[in-house]
Amino acid sequence: MRLSRREFSRLAALGVAAGMVPEGMARGLAQVAGSSQQPKVGYCVIGLGRIADHFMRGVKGSSTSTITGLVSGHREKAERIAAQYGVPKSSIYSYEEMDRMRENKAIDAVYVALPNSMHAEYTIRSAKAGKHVLCEKPMSTSVKDAKAMIAACDAAKVLLMIAYRLHYEPTTRRAIKLVQGGVVGQVQSIVSANGFNERAGEWRLDKKLAGGGPLMDVGIYCLNAMRYLTGEEPAKFTGYVSTIDKDGRFDSVEENTSWTMQFPSGIEATCTTTYGAQMPGVYKVFGSKGWLEVDNFGYDGLRLTAEYRGDAGPVKLDELNTEKDPEQFVRQVDHFSGCVRTGRTPDTAGEEGLRDMEYMQDIYRSAGVVALV
Amino acid sequence: MRLSRREFSRLAALGVAAGMVPEGMARGLAQVAGSSQQPKVGYCVIGLGRIADHFMRGVKGSSTSTITGLVSGHREKAERIAAQYGVPKSSIYSYEEMDRMRENKAIDAVYVALPNSMHAEYTIRSAKAGKHVLCEKPMSTSVKDAKAMIAACDAAKVLLMIAYRLHYEPTTRRAIKLVQGGVVGQVQSIVSANGFNERAGEWRLDKKLAGGGPLMDVGIYCLNAMRYLTGEEPAKFTGYVSTIDKDGRFDSVEENTSWTMQFPSGIEATCTTTYGAQMPGVYKVFGSKGWLEVDNFGYDGLRLTAEYRGDAGPVKLDELNTEKDPEQFVRQVDHFSGCVRTGRTPDTAGEEGLRDMEYMQDIYRSAGVVALV
Repeated sequence: MRLSRREFSRLAALGVAAGMVPEGMARGLAQVAGSSQQPKVGYCVIGLGRIADHFMRGVKGSSTSTITGLVSGHREKAERIAAQYGVPKSSIYSYEEMDRMRENKAIDAVYVALPNSMHAEYTIRSAKAGKHVLCEKPMSTSVKDAKAMIAACDAAKVLLMIAYRLHYEPTTRRAIKLVQGGVVGQVQSIVSANGFNERAGEWRLDKKLAGGGPLMDVGIYCLNAMRYLTGEEPAKFTGYVSTIDKDGRFDSVEENTSWTMQFPSGIEATCTTTYGAQMPGVYKVFGSKGWLEVDNFGYDGLRLTAEYRGDAGPVKLDELNTEKDPEQFVRQVDHFSGCVRTGRTPDTAGEEGLRDMEYMQDIYRSAGVVALV
Repeated sequence: MRLSRREFSRLAALGVAAGMVPEGMARGLAQVAGSSQQPKVGYCVIGLGRIADHFMRGVKGSSTSTITGLVSGHREKAERIAAQYGVPKSSIYSYEEMDRMRENKAIDAVYVALPNSMHAEYTIRSAKAGKHVLCEKPMSTSVKDAKAMIAACDAAKVLLMIAYRLHYEPTTRRAIKLVQGGVVGQVQSIVSANGFNERAGEWRLDKKLAGGGPLMDVGIYCLNAMRYLTGEEPAKFTGYVSTIDKDGRFDSVEENTSWTMQFPSGIEATCTTTYGAQMPGVYKVFGSKGWLEVDNFGYDGLRLTAEYRGDAGPVKLDELNTEKDPEQFVRQVDHFSGCVRTGRTPDTAGEEGLRDMEYMQDIYRSAGVVALV
């Protein structure tokens, strides 16, 4: 069963979807969807890189949210984007002056789309300015920073959501529902990979900005997937990091990380990530009755395949999600805006981000690397 | 490029294939293929289970080998099979009396197809009877036994080959050639899985016979693949074992094993194996220019797919090996018979099996299990 965002919102509003989606989420969306007269939640985008572009296009496609401010070090670029999204020039801030957004009533929330090491500072400053915070993953570059971000948002009584967009994406939700619903039987093992060839000069290769190598940026998808698929928190970690290419790209961060995890139920997971290979994102769940795979952690084109022994005989699934980017960002921002309107805690609150930070620290530690402290 | 066994033997005989296959193997096969008048190598099959059936059908399809003896605890079954393969009743032995095969000139070699824990005893007894030994994997249930098997065969001046049939299988050989030839660029990471739902009552679930759980029987394919794909010996191991299903099947051996390895070059590998899930065999190699996957470690139907950046643009491969079982067993026995005829060391000699035993011991140790000592 697959629903468009509009059908989903409608069902949520009617309360019919309560069994399909977390009740709170259905409630939040229902409130948003059922109140077209309610003003949109206004977002100030901090950092105008590639991911911010996806986000802003998503907001444009959303009926719940709107772009009302920009923070950038490049005034000219910011003015161009402001014109595109109808943001007044007076709502463009430099990094230094962004605390002034406190006075800007059109800004309800911020979207932090900066390099990882800047997430903490800009989340905390935004919270102090009284704005709700949607922050990109990884949440921070240290466990300490992640805790400080949660504390700052709590103290300011603003919401904090980490932008784990796949939690709001239909193929992912369907995979979770199928796996936890037992269609592949008792899960024994899950494997996952996600990586790419990073180009020299990218900020991700600078440990001061990124906090670590591919684990932080793309491996985190594997880690998080293992958690949402099992519904468990991992109990044990062991892993390795390595750097093979001596071409200057990996003087600061490691090139590869691979690890094995065990969950309390006994489910085992193996994951691998890289900045040095073409490694399309994927996870595959192996259970007593069959397997289920989702191909790609990207912005669109997710494909779910499965083969299992159903009650009435063998079942084969092959489902391509044909929604196009930026639909995932629409769903994500709709969720957070619903939370902002209703005051409910986002499905992927700061605590979700903090857990991944702690687990990534565990993986690094097991590999003999001191990181993310 | 794919060759039938006959084309391959012909090329080997002509010396043309020297660049495609290890020179020694080409030589061995050339000698066999080029001498159709030479008597076939006679094999005595020890243990008449499922794998022995594949082997015997393979020998029947081979021009180099023939079945000349059987060792079984079931006389009636053995007589039925003997009739099928033209083995005289006088060449059927019980386990107790099999040492008498020393006098049987029609038996050049044995094929040990017994449960794992019996490999050592029957390999050593066969060596003492002056017969070359082709022994199924895993070589043994302890490192100590594996060493004793090598020593016994050395002392008796007979050859010992471990039946790693995929080393002689075209899709596997092509994958190795492509990966080591660099088509996917610098390899960073390899993932592999292999497992199945084992039925209650099978000897594989009895640690006394099997030595361990799925790692010994099916996980060994992942382990061995990582070695033949990289051409390296792994430097580090960490892993976990777990048992989830409390249905009595896993009172003796563990249900799941997952592990991460690192090779001296820095290549990382993650593997998972199970007796509690449908887990089709697979490995996928991730390199700087693309990826290569081989689907299935089975007796036929191996499929190689790959996507990489070639010199002249993007390349996509999708190659299904249409050879049918027992062709892999033909290739395997042809190799060993060539070695028997020429005295050369098999590509997968006892030392190859010993290494996997040592590595499996390392994996178990890292998981806190004392095994295979």
